[in-house]
Amino acid sequence: KVKEPQETEFVMMREGQILFTYLHLAAEPRLTNFLLERKITAIGYETVQINGYLPLLTPMSEIAGRMATQIGARLMEKKYGGRGILIGGVTGVPAAEVVILGAGTVGSNAARVALGMGAHVTVLDRVPQRLRELSHLSQGQITTFVSRPYNIEKAVKYADLVISAVLVPGGKTPCLITEEMVKKMKPGSVIIDVSIDQGGAVETIRATSHSNPTFIKHGVVHYAVPNIPGAVPRTSTVALTNGTLPYIQDLAGKGFKKAVLEDPALAKGVNTYRGAVVNEAVAMAHALQFTPLEKLL
Amino acid sequence: KVKEPQETEFVMMREGQILFTYLHLAAEPRLTNFLLERKITAIGYETVQINGYLPLLTPMSEIAGRMATQIGARLMEKKYGGRGILIGGVTGVPAAEVVILGAGTVGSNAARVALGMGAHVTVLDRVPQRLRELSHLSQGQITTFVSRPYNIEKAVKYADLVISAVLVPGGKTPCLITEEMVKKMKPGSVIIDVSIDQGGAVETIRATSHSNPTFIKHGVVHYAVPNIPGAVPRTSTVALTNGTLPYIQDLAGKGFKKAVLEDPALAKGVNTYRGAVVNEAVAMAHALQFTPLEKLL
Amino acid sequence: KVKEPQETEFVMMREGQILFTYLHLAAEPRLTNFLLERKITAIGYETVQINGYLPLLTPMSEIAGRMATQIGARLMEKKYGGRGILIGGVTGVPAAEVVILGAGTVGSNAARVALGMGAHVTVLDRVPQRLRELSHLSQGQITTFVSRPYNIEKAVKYADLVISAVLVPGGKTPCLITEEMVKKMKPGSVIIDVSIDQGGAVETIRATSHSNPTFIKHGVVHYAVPNIPGAVPRTSTVALTNGTLPYIQDLAGKGFKKAVLEDPALAKGVNTYRGAVVNEAVAMAHALQFTPLEKLL
Amino acid sequence: KVKEPQETEFVMMREGQILFTYLHLAAEPRLTNFLLERKITAIGYETVQINGYLPLLTPMSEIAGRMATQIGARLMEKKYGGRGILIGGVTGVPAAEVVILGAGTVGSNAARVALGMGAHVTVLDRVPQRLRELSHLSQGQITTFVSRPYNIEKAVKYADLVISAVLVPGGKTPCLITEEMVKKMKPGSVIIDVSIDQGGAVETIRATSHSNPTFIKHGVVHYAVPNIPGAVPRTSTVALTNGTLPYIQDLAGKGFKKAVLEDPALAKGVNTYRGAVVNEAVAMAHALQFTPLEKLL
Amino acid sequence: KVKEPQETEFVMMREGQILFTYLHLAAEPRLTNFLLERKITAIGYETVQINGYLPLLTPMSEIAGRMATQIGARLMEKKYGGRGILIGGVTGVPAAEVVILGAGTVGSNAARVALGMGAHVTVLDRVPQRLRELSHLSQGQITTFVSRPYNIEKAVKYADLVISAVLVPGGKTPCLITEEMVKKMKPGSVIIDVSIDQGGAVETIRATSHSNPTFIKHGVVHYAVPNIPGAVPRTSTVALTNGTLPYIQDLAGKGFKKAVLEDPALAKGVNTYRGAVVNEAVAMAHALQFTPLEKLL
Amino acid sequence: KVKEPQETEFVMMREGQILFTYLHLAAEPRLTNFLLERKITAIGYETVQINGYLPLLTPMSEIAGRMATQIGARLMEKKYGGRGILIGGVTGVPAAEVVILGAGTVGSNAARVALGMGAHVTVLDRVPQRLRELSHLSQGQITTFVSRPYNIEKAVKYADLVISAVLVPGGKTPCLITEEMVKKMKPGSVIIDVSIDQGGAVETIRATSHSNPTFIKHGVVHYAVPNIPGAVPRTSTVALTNGTLPYIQDLAGKGFKKAVLEDPALAKGVNTYRGAVVNEAVAMAHALQFTPLEKLL
Repeated sequence: KVKEPQETEFVMMREGQILFTYLHLAAEPRLTNFLLERKITAIGYETVQINGYLPLLTPMSEIAGRMATQIGARLMEKKYGGRGILIGGVTGVPAAEVVILGAGTVGSNAARVALGMGAHVTVLDRVPQRLRELSHLSQGQITTFVSRPYNIEKAVKYADLVISAVLVPGGKTPCLITEEMVKKMKPGSVIIDVSIDQGGAVETIRATSHSNPTFIKHGVVHYAVPNIPGAVPRTSTVALTNGTLPYIQDLAGKGFKKAVLEDPALAKGVNTYRGAVVNEAVAMAHALQFTPLEKLL
Repeated sequence: KVKEPQETEFVMMREGQILFTYLHLAAEPRLTNFLLERKITAIGYETVQINGYLPLLTPMSEIAGRMATQIGARLMEKKYGGRGILIGGVTGVPAAEVVILGAGTVGSNAARVALGMGAHVTVLDRVPQRLRELSHLSQGQITTFVSRPYNIEKAVKYADLVISAVLVPGGKTPCLITEEMVKKMKPGSVIIDVSIDQGGAVETIRATSHSNPTFIKHGVVHYAVPNIPGAVPRTSTVALTNGTLPYIQDLAGKGFKKAVLEDPALAKGVNTYRGAVVNEAVAMAHALQFTPLEKLL
Repeated sequence: KVKEPQETEFVMMREGQILFTYLHLAAEPRLTNFLLERKITAIGYETVQINGYLPLLTPMSEIAGRMATQIGARLMEKKYGGRGILIGGVTGVPAAEVVILGAGTVGSNAARVALGMGAHVTVLDRVPQRLRELSHLSQGQITTFVSRPYNIEKAVKYADLVISAVLVPGGKTPCLITEEMVKKMKPGSVIIDVSIDQGGAVETIRATSHSNPTFIKHGVVHYAVPNIPGAVPRTSTVALTNGTLPYIQDLAGKGFKKAVLEDPALAKGVNTYRGAVVNEAVAMAHALQFTPLEKLL
Repeated sequence: KVKEPQETEFVMMREGQILFTYLHLAAEPRLTNFLLERKITAIGYETVQINGYLPLLTPMSEIAGRMATQIGARLMEKKYGGRGILIGGVTGVPAAEVVILGAGTVGSNAARVALGMGAHVTVLDRVPQRLRELSHLSQGQITTFVSRPYNIEKAVKYADLVISAVLVPGGKTPCLITEEMVKKMKPGSVIIDVSIDQGGAVETIRATSHSNPTFIKHGVVHYAVPNIPGAVPRTSTVALTNGTLPYIQDLAGKGFKKAVLEDPALAKGVNTYRGAVVNEAVAMAHALQFTPLEKLL
Repeated sequence: KVKEPQETEFVMMREGQILFTYLHLAAEPRLTNFLLERKITAIGYETVQINGYLPLLTPMSEIAGRMATQIGARLMEKKYGGRGILIGGVTGVPAAEVVILGAGTVGSNAARVALGMGAHVTVLDRVPQRLRELSHLSQGQITTFVSRPYNIEKAVKYADLVISAVLVPGGKTPCLITEEMVKKMKPGSVIIDVSIDQGGAVETIRATSHSNPTFIKHGVVHYAVPNIPGAVPRTSTVALTNGTLPYIQDLAGKGFKKAVLEDPALAKGVNTYRGAVVNEAVAMAHALQFTPLEKLL
Repeated sequence: KVKEPQETEFVMMREGQILFTYLHLAAEPRLTNFLLERKITAIGYETVQINGYLPLLTPMSEIAGRMATQIGARLMEKKYGGRGILIGGVTGVPAAEVVILGAGTVGSNAARVALGMGAHVTVLDRVPQRLRELSHLSQGQITTFVSRPYNIEKAVKYADLVISAVLVPGGKTPCLITEEMVKKMKPGSVIIDVSIDQGGAVETIRATSHSNPTFIKHGVVHYAVPNIPGAVPRTSTVALTNGTLPYIQDLAGKGFKKAVLEDPALAKGVNTYRGAVVNEAVAMAHALQFTPLEKLL
């Protein structure tokens, strides 16, 4: 099961050991201090980076996107508070309208499954070029809108299922769907907010859990479980290991220094080293001093 | 050019000659009389029939259906009175809504081209099973409704382009789109009535011509040129000849009697023979006596 | 909600009234007696028939088939006892193996959604020609096997999700998946038995309910809720009404006799009339006398 | 309607005002002088640029490309002088051969619609890698040739419709189709020259207008209306606004200086500022002095 | 290996035994006599028939059709005498033109593989309706012609690969491709004649063998191995057994009489029974007396 | 025929002449010396490079990839030692499992043809992002694994056909499939090693020839003909000329110096010039002195 690391597990770590996992230190002051005090070499999956591409976040985003549609289809059933409709419709009954905010990895994977299940799909994104690519890959089957309040409001109003897949790398998600918009949605429609980790993009949302996944507000079913891939741990573990194993092999085989010097992607992943913060964003978040990693090697 | 036969051409025919073309005698009392008087053997393309399938009408219906969408796309341009929209939309701008009445040969061919041009397509038909097949062939990309006044009104209201492809074999088309419905359509939307030959399925329609193809009523562009395939005569001629040639070869090679005796499909095509009406519907239409063909052979 | 009719509702019926709904009288001796005593004209949705095609059963089968895959995808999640895998897999992680018994309406709709969600799909049917058509429609993406014990065992063994869509019209489903086969399935794999209405095709199955939908046996998640379309009542109601409305309009507009005389499909739907059993299978099931409907009209 | 700005509208502008529209100053000496004299801040849509990608030209190219095929399909009708064929053909009659010069935005959109309408499509481009991508996206349905005189001549000869989509950024289109080649084309074939803005790529072409769109030379229908998207103003306006609005919001919200300093794409769009030419190509075209924008901010 | 039965194997058969295999007795006078003398019950795979559908021939036709394209692709290689081209072409090089005569099971399977390999595919058939269905299933990617000498000659001339898939059930294949047409084919083009079992449809063809599969005439590579499925015995055996096993189980389980009485498809398969010819075509072929099977049971 | 250049042809070259062809000098010490002594300007197709893209290698890789699947399909026939199966299977018989190592140009083209022929396709690559793109382009039809010994062994074991398409630019292919893995493969399965030019990725492989293309080891058919595109010389020549002609025109039109100065891609292609080695890798391979080309111009 893809669990977030627990504090008790960290307490057992000793100076000089390497911690390689999801860290999100900018939001974790206590954990940051702990890592600095123990002089732990902490490498965050979420900061490993190759030319802007985040190889250890992408597989989880793929899974979250695909799951989001699947979960949304379920929540449209009557017993979950939904409208009691089948996502793909059936002969003589129109398919559900699925509106997806964001054409990144989460959004495009959600769109792909929604199309496959027979839904009508609308995707909104700020960047027209990204919509263009998505449209081409789907042979023009997706309706696209540039993400602006006017368009968001229009789309959300006709939606049966809204998937918020807006991820602002390393920042808080902007609130794109206001409470006013939610009030205008059809009763029984569904919102899945995949961006809840970063605060969510919906004014009425709050984090829910795998055991109690939804609540209803203004007649709309809200779902915002933070760790969606945790529902399919076998798939998630293999997908994640596909990404992490080569780095682990490098760290184990070459040792930390050689591995980091030879692979700038891995070097970008290092957050704390020998009691110093070597990631600028983390340093800024906690008003700590930033030391470039190169200086310490 | 696929022209309807002109009277002057018929006058030159003599007794015993075979006339093999589109006849539609039920609507042509004068022509019927002429053929009976001259004792012409008249075979109507439209009545040749194999197990309910009309081999000499189908190719023209295929062409009319495909042309209907193409013409509709053009009429959406501003200068023809349309809404000034592109049928397939473009990144960030939704595609046009194309609503097709009838899932027969005309309708399914219109739908196919509309999908290919990137439109959103809705098809209505009285028979769910036909919608099912169409939906399967289009991989579920088409929205289907059972054809009922409630559904027709709903679909026509959101349509940018309505194609009426309702053909009642050998009868007058029922009026499915009332003037009230047309009034509720979006200004600049377009109606193409392919069923105009049989009176049309739209209350506000009247036949137009290739030279003056449209008129605007209640803000809606109406198009109802009877002989749509005439616009692409080369394609139409080859398509039609594909169907007629084997019959012509049989008539020429075996002679009328043998040809008709050996091929029940061709026999069904015979309308008048030796001064007698041998097609029951034609006889009924003009209150003439019906003689079964077999009796005369 | 598409509910089975309750007895209390019937008690209020009076002689001569028409009951038009799902009846399944062969399995309902008390209801049959009641209808005969009260001389109610009972028309069963499930026996209306046009050339072997059942227009009032097909829409429910379409919905059940599509829902089956969607439910199966959900049950593969860890918390439902499944293997914790994503049906469509993800880059670097293979998709789930979905094995479907039966290539009829239920099976082909289940297959279509499974393909759309990215699964590997295997379909088994006794009739090769049906597999051929399904294979063509899916552009060859489906693996097909002729349904024989050897092939069923082989497929069930590698399946992550088994959907039993075997419907024997008007009879009890044969047991195709034995307990021995279930024991050999992967732990955490899932069985959905859509044919539970007719007894089910799996030795270890028993009917479950929307409120308590699954049980685990031999490590395999079993799901067998009889009325699957009940989960999406809005879609189901519209789909069903598409089929029933024309008959209701006929019954209301023309009266029973005229309606039944003019439409042999509806006539086939009549089960009891004026105190007589007019459906042969029902008569046989309860050892009652059978009277052909024509004799009574 | 997407009109080119008229001189009368410019005369009303005053010093310091911002003009943000299509400018093409390199070809407009009088307009350039006017903007310099009045010290107008002129930003040209066509020079806004992100890594070689032109976000305010692309939507118009998409529309022009899709319209080109649609217009070509129409001109193949007999009454426009075409061969009288249906672009997608019909059962037993082959589809039209559509030959597209250029695999950029215009060409690939023209190709997509042509494929969707059922045509046989050939695309030529100088760069094999671009053909490769197009071929992959179309699942190999497009025939590709490297653009060389030999291949152009061969393709043009078998074409029913030629679409010239050759755009040389900021330069005059080379003449790729010579008069000799046009003479060898089939009578009634059609040429659409989308590159007419930049002089056209066909020796026999000259600009035509929406009101008089075609002329026939050597038996070939020529179409070269410069502003094709003007035919669908609603779609064009939304598509264009999708691109321009964020820049307008920045200019209005932050003021010119801040907006331009923060967004290098917008900075590249500036042509004249405070009486100086800040775009090198424009300066060169009119032998004026070039001042880098940064110097003036 | 799917072998034709050898005479030595028959000699060991005794009176009353059942022979169930491919027989083709109309072309085998000696075998017919032998079966009659020994009073063997001979059931021919090729005459088992359900409503005109031949369940034991279809799987072999599917395999032969798919193999035909695969073999054709190989023979286009230089070393086999072909033109040295890749069937699907490559970026900048057009695909091969594959021309298929016949849109039945062999032809449509050959077309499907050819499309999948990226070829341009033309199919000819006498029946437009069959072309229509094939065109729909292939989403209009196939060029279709009605099979007439004029069209055959035209298509064969531009073909790189011709596949003759013309099967006239129970009769000799007509010669559709004359020597004159072969002479006009491109040097190095390839002909695969799947209909060689019934004499072939090409004037210049003669049967070849798996060990010596081709000869070259008029510069054209000819391939006409009678038993194409024999090259992939594992696939062929399973495919065939899928069809034959249910009949074998019936024959073994119920005995011949009951099996034949209950299953008219199997009854149609019987050719000789108790020394009598019970298949009319076989009787006619050898001028023997025909006895209907029912009379003998 | 795309032949490797023969030594005899080189002997005739004189000082100052330009040699423009495939060179692979790093592996050719004698040829390198000869070119240096004769002061020949040698440009290697394989080192011409635009941003890491190799325009003169890619077309050959496309052809090799497509041919690899086609050859593999053939070798699965019984007579070549294969399992006697049809690559795409047939109704009721599963398709072959095709496992491809490497998702570059060779691998993705091999996968495309394999999918088109109806096979089940698995692709392995070290880089997940490349698998992601391939998966998207194939609409998720391909199973992907990250290339690791564990996954390779798993996939090779279930494969009917393995295609090794692992190309390490300018280096020796690593051995990915060990002899142990080959031993575990199914008897009659097939290995095609496209990377044989660089030593091959299979422990049991050795180069074979067009005339004697396969050998069998551990029951597995091995194929490793180095110059696969040579089998389809017409396609290969056109594809190659598409890439080389513009360079030849530049060299002929502008002269070597100007051509090389204006086109850095061509400059990268130069290996020897005026008796100096100007390609660093070649210099290193033969321990010769490296001189940057710019110094000599």
